[in-house]
Order: sequence, then structure tokens, then C-alpha cells
Amino acid sequence: MALIVHKYGGTSLADVKLIRRCAERIAADHQAGHRIVVVVSAMAGETDRLLGLARLLSSRPAKRELDAALAAGEQASIGLIAIALNEMGVAARSYNGAQLPIRTSGVHGKARIAEVGTQTLAAALDAGVVPVVAGFQGVDDKGSITTLGRGGSDTTAVAVAAALAADECRIYTDVEGVYTTDPRVVPEARLLPCITFEEMLELSSMGSKVLQIRAVELAGKRRIPLRVLPSYGAGNGTLITYEESSMETPPVSGIAFVRDEAEITVVGMPETMDAAARILKPIAEAHIEVDMIVQNTAREGRLDFTFTVHRGDCDAALEILDRELRPLGVADIAGNRQVAKISIVGLGIRSHAGIAATLFSTLSRAGIAVKLIATSEIKISVLVDEDHLETGVRCLHEAYGLAEG
Amino acid sequence: MALIVHKYGGTSLADVKLIRRCAERIAADHQAGHRIVVVVSAMAGETDRLLGLARLLSSRPAKRELDAALAAGEQASIGLIAIALNEMGVAARSYNGAQLPIRTSGVHGKARIAEVGTQTLAAALDAGVVPVVAGFQGVDDKGSITTLGRGGSDTTAVAVAAALAADECRIYTDVEGVYTTDPRVVPEARLLPCITFEEMLELSSMGSKVLQIRAVELAGKRRIPLRVLPSYGAGNGTLITYEESSMETPPVSGIAFVRDEAEITVVGMPETMDAAARILKPIAEAHIEVDMIVQNTAREGRLDFTFTVHRGDCDAALEILDRELRPLGVADIAGNRQVAKISIVGLGIRSHAGIAATLFSTLSRAGIAVKLIATSEIKISVLVDEDHLETGVRCLHEAYGLAEG
Repeated sequence: MALIVHKYGGTSLADVKLIRRCAERIAADHQAGHRIVVVVSAMAGETDRLLGLARLLSSRPAKRELDAALAAGEQASIGLIAIALNEMGVAARSYNGAQLPIRTSGVHGKARIAEVGTQTLAAALDAGVVPVVAGFQGVDDKGSITTLGRGGSDTTAVAVAAALAADECRIYTDVEGVYTTDPRVVPEARLLPCITFEEMLELSSMGSKVLQIRAVELAGKRRIPLRVLPSYGAGNGTLITYEESSMETPPVSGIAFVRDEAEITVVGMPETMDAAARILKPIAEAHIEVDMIVQNTAREGRLDFTFTVHRGDCDAALEILDRELRPLGVADIAGNRQVAKISIVGLGIRSHAGIAATLFSTLSRAGIAVKLIATSEIKISVLVDEDHLETGVRCLHEAYGLAEG
Repeated sequence: MALIVHKYGGTSLADVKLIRRCAERIAADHQAGHRIVVVVSAMAGETDRLLGLARLLSSRPAKRELDAALAAGEQASIGLIAIALNEMGVAARSYNGAQLPIRTSGVHGKARIAEVGTQTLAAALDAGVVPVVAGFQGVDDKGSITTLGRGGSDTTAVAVAAALAADECRIYTDVEGVYTTDPRVVPEARLLPCITFEEMLELSSMGSKVLQIRAVELAGKRRIPLRVLPSYGAGNGTLITYEESSMETPPVSGIAFVRDEAEITVVGMPETMDAAARILKPIAEAHIEVDMIVQNTAREGRLDFTFTVHRGDCDAALEILDRELRPLGVADIAGNRQVAKISIVGLGIRSHAGIAATLFSTLSRAGIAVKLIATSEIKISVLVDEDHLETGVRCLHEAYGLAEG
């Protein structure tokens, strides 16, 4: 008899039929004797609808009030889920962020959870009631409603699981779980029954939008067994684990990729200056995130410096650099919007020799030029021409034998 | 520099353009130096949308959870109004029922307001902030969200005005105010600049849906100056007063009517029994509301008994009576769905002789037969054939000189 947190996102609650399906799933686990706490997002489209109304009223909506308006989304869904559960004979009660309470910092729109009140939840569970908790929202010291930012419901679910020392936190989504790579690109992609926390972090940060990275980080910090699984069907999804399963670990677990990258190169930067800082500081001040960074060895007092940004930030970055660096007499500042990033992720990378060699020889045989390389303990990323992305991912998926598991 | 409560209903907040118009009105009063508290309903259609979803999930939605879901409607609108006000440079903060708090009984769906917390409101007003309060909702002793029932936002507005001892409570609606009768029936109908509390009560209970009767009752109990006025345009609407303005009071203030009445007659009820109780008790037990009641004098040990119900309840009432009374040997039980009720309302009715005589002679001259009569201190109601309703109202409006004021 376990204590399990179920979390359902907006697409799993898009209409009455789907809400009922979620309720059936909750009811089944409840009737099997488990203690269930449910965390839900707003119904699909609801947050965007409210945000749209707010933006029509103000180009910069007052942040406290925007949080108040957005909180309506989960307020509705907790009530509706609880209604569906009661209809099925499962005693259920809804709780919004203020009712538990879920105490957060006062940074509206980006609040951080400080504490989840467990008294109300524990009393409900002891009484055989299924608590249905509003994700995404909390309350600050002044009693104002706060929101955690996009995808914050995952974080709420993990925080609730941590506060209750739950046996498992299940994030129900519209995918089967975590795959060795995107099945739309590689049909042989295999569902991973489990993945380590570190690997999941790398995959999340790579834009595999299965789980919010904040939620993964929080789960890791509190060592919450976290499972991603489909809200339809019967699959067991992917369990995120905190221990390496020794020798059986395959060297590479999965292949992630990001399509919308852009590469910026500064040619002929004077070597005597702190080149990297001169280039990256104004970029950071414009709140543009930089991903891969490569600095070439200097020749004749000049060096070339290359980095990548989100494609949407490319123009802004080029403009900034043009303003800041042209006066210093750099030879050229060039942007390339036709690039994409492929990463191999796996705990084995740090211990298995030859992983990197396989990567480069595979891409070379496929006629794919590697433009940039970045390495971490458990990840190797390469930047390639956008046109080569899918071929590269397929070749690497095969080279590492990921389809066989 | 007055303290004024503004209340806006759903139709005044149906879209972004209308929300902005309400905000402009609030901003104008605020900038004129008044202290303003705003009470709002859910945007038009929102409560029905949420209720519809709940009913699809359950034919009898769990009441606590239905209140939680419905509360989302005002949660959104308080945030949006506050956003619109801040955009106009008016500092505004939203508060839901739990945040103030508005303490209510725990009867979900029909909660009664016990107390309105004024500390937060007073602090906001002192700081020059416009508080935007969620109508219709509150919080019970257990911290659960409650709702007050349809039209409850009017009641919230009056309760807030009473708690703050406001100078005026303004209910902004989609009508100009209270008329001598429905202008769609009598084009000469005149807007009343003021009306006494007692008259307003009678008109509200007659289905003149300008104000919820609960709100009028609460205003009367606490003697809150209450004004009904249009949310569009510049009209001053109708002020509800608590003092008779002596001799100037016209004997009849207005003419109300109800279209969807049904008349039920029990013919030949044995006189020896407590006939009224035998007839009305099973009707009451089925939660059917009875309006007019007439018992004829008995002849030869038998009497006829007639009463009216909402037309929608007619079949159910006939079925009940058939089951309960046939065994007692009544001669007939008949229903007439083609009837309507006309009422003249006015403080003058209790003191002016001849008011009733004018009523009957006017209807008689117009060839309208009166089927039932009911009288109160300040109201006389008659039941007529539905076909005669509009003619009757027009003739009476002219007979009492209401167009001239």
C-alpha cells in the first residue's frame, strides 16, 4: 500500500472525456488500496486563454494580478476532477495553493516553493479521501496568489511528493515515457524503462520536453522516485532512478537534439584582451542564453570565437556584437542560422573509452561535418548543418545499438 | 470624498472592451477623489460554462467541489479588472473570498455571508489602492470555498458596503435602472429616480430581475444606500431609499408582471378536512413554490381550492395532487397553463382609497377577467389570461398616470 502522487497536465485534461479517464485511473489506484494525492494543471488552452485576455488589457499586466487571473485555471480543474472522482464513488476534495498552503517566494510569475503544508493532506489521506491539489500556484507571505511559471505543475507534484515522503511521483503525460531518441525521427527508438537522474537532467535541458528541468532538479535533490508515463493506455513509462545499475548500464542511454540553434562567430578578435568576457558580457546583459562556446587558438595576435544561441536570439546577438566589437577592429562577425545540435547522453560516457571515437567516425562515414564540439561528464554534443540533423541522429542511434537495449 | 462600492455583473464584463469600460468608470471615480471598492462577478457565460462541465462529469456534482470549480470564474475576473486598472495608472489589487476573508456558512451553493473582513480592505484604501473583490464566493469555517448562489455578487457588494459603512453601493447593470414597468411592454414606461426599499422588494420578488432580492433585503436591514445604474452610458439610475418622501409619493410606483404562471384548481374538496394543508403539504415536500392561494367558501360540504405555481412545476404538481387527493373523492383537479400575473406596487396602496377600485374598473373596461386576487400592504396582484397580460399592463400604466411621474 504505497503513497503515490499522480500529476496530470493540461493535455490530459483537455475535455470532459479525458478528465473522466484521469479520474478512472486515480480511482483504480485508490481502490487497489494505495493512498493517492492528485496534482493537476489547468485544462489545455485555459492558461493561454487567460493570458491572452490579460495581454489585451495590458501590454505588461501587473504581475500580482496576472497570477490571480491565471490561478483560475487550476481552480476550475481541481474542482472538476474532484467532482468526477466523487461521481465514481471516490471521496475527493480539492485544495488550491492557498488552502494547503503551498508557501512560495513572492516573485510573481516565477515563484519558488518554500514549503508544502502537509497537515490538511495527511488528514484527508487518513480519512480515506483523495486530495486534488492545484499545481502551478502557491501563496506568498502576504497571502497573495503566486504562480511558478510554465510547467510549474510538475514542480508542485514533486514538492508535494517530497513533503509527504511519497513512494512515487507519477507524471502522466501525452507520451509513453522517455525514449532513446525522438521516435518521429528514428522509428526504432526504444522506450527506456528507467534512466538515471543525471541523464534525465541532460535530456530535459536538451529540450526533450517530457519533464520540466526544475521538477527533475527538485526530485534529484530530494531523491523522489519520479516516473513519466502516459495518461492514456497502460504503459509503465520511464522511472527516473538515483543509482547506477552497475555494469548493465549501457554506455549511451539516448540521443537528444535541438533544431533551432544559431552559431555566431567573431573572427579576428584581438588576443590581448579578455576576449570571451568582452563578447559574452553584453550578450548576457541582454538576457540571451548562450549554449556551446569554442575559442580557437590565437594566430598572429588574433583569435576566432564561436558560440551558439537560440535561433530567435540570433539577430539581437549579432546587433549587440556589431555595436560592441566593431570599434575594436574585429575582422568579421558572422551568424549561421542553419545549424542544429545533436547530443549523446549516458552515464557510460565518463567510463567507457571509445564512445567519442564512435561518435565522430559514425558522423564522418555519413558525410556529416562537425562544426562545434562540447563535452560534459555524461554528454557529448556536436553542432552540425541543420540538413544533417535527422541522418546524424539515425546513424548514431544505430551505432550505439540503442534499438536493442 | 465618498466611499463607494461599485459592482459589475457578468454582462458588464463580457469581453475585453467591456472590462476596459468598467475600469474607466472606476478610474474616473477614483481620480475624482473617491475611495472605491469594486465587486465583480464572473465574465458572462463563464459560470454556465463551468457548471456545464461539472454536469457532464456528474448529474449531481459534489457540492463542495462544484463551488471550488465555479469560484474560478470570479478568480479570473478580479485579476483581469485589476490588470486593466493598473494599466490605467490606478493602483488596484484583487482579493478572492478567502483572502479578505468573506466568511460564510458552510452550505455549499447557497452559503450566507456571516462576516466580511475589513482589515485588508481598509489598509488597501488607506494606501490609495482600489481593492477588487470576488463576488458570489466566500470561505467557511473549514477553509472550504463556498458560493452564495445565483446573483450572489449583488449580495457580496451590499455586504462589503455594510461592513465598510460605505456611502453608496452602486450596482452597475445592463439596464438604465428601475422602471414603472417593463419598457418592452409599455413604451411610455418611466425610469424611477428613486424607489422605496419596500417597493423594490416587491418588484424584485415579482421577477423584475434588476436586483437579487437577497441583496435588497440585506441592504434594507443595514440601511445601505443602494443604486441600480447602467454600466454603459451616463445615467444616474435608480436610488433605493429608506424613507417615504411624504405627500409626494405617488400611490402606485410601478407595475410588475410574471408570464410563466400556472393555475391549479382542486374542485369539490371535502370541507371537513384541513383542505389547505392536505393540498399544499405534498406540494411543499416536492420543493415546488406556491404563489397565490385562494380558497372558496364551501357549499354543501365541498369547497374549491386554487393556487398558482411556476409553469414548469405544473405537471409535477398535478401528478402529486392526483396521487394524494383522488382517493379522497375530489370532483376534479385542473391545471391552466395559460395564465399570467400582474401586480401594482406602491407605498400609497396602504393609505390611498380607491387604488384597488381603479385596478378592477380599468381591467373590466378593457374586457379582462380577473381570475384570482392577492393583496399585501403595498401590492395588489391579479391573475389573468396570458393573452391579456400586455393589454392589462398598458391600461394600468396609463390609469395610474405612471408615464407622467
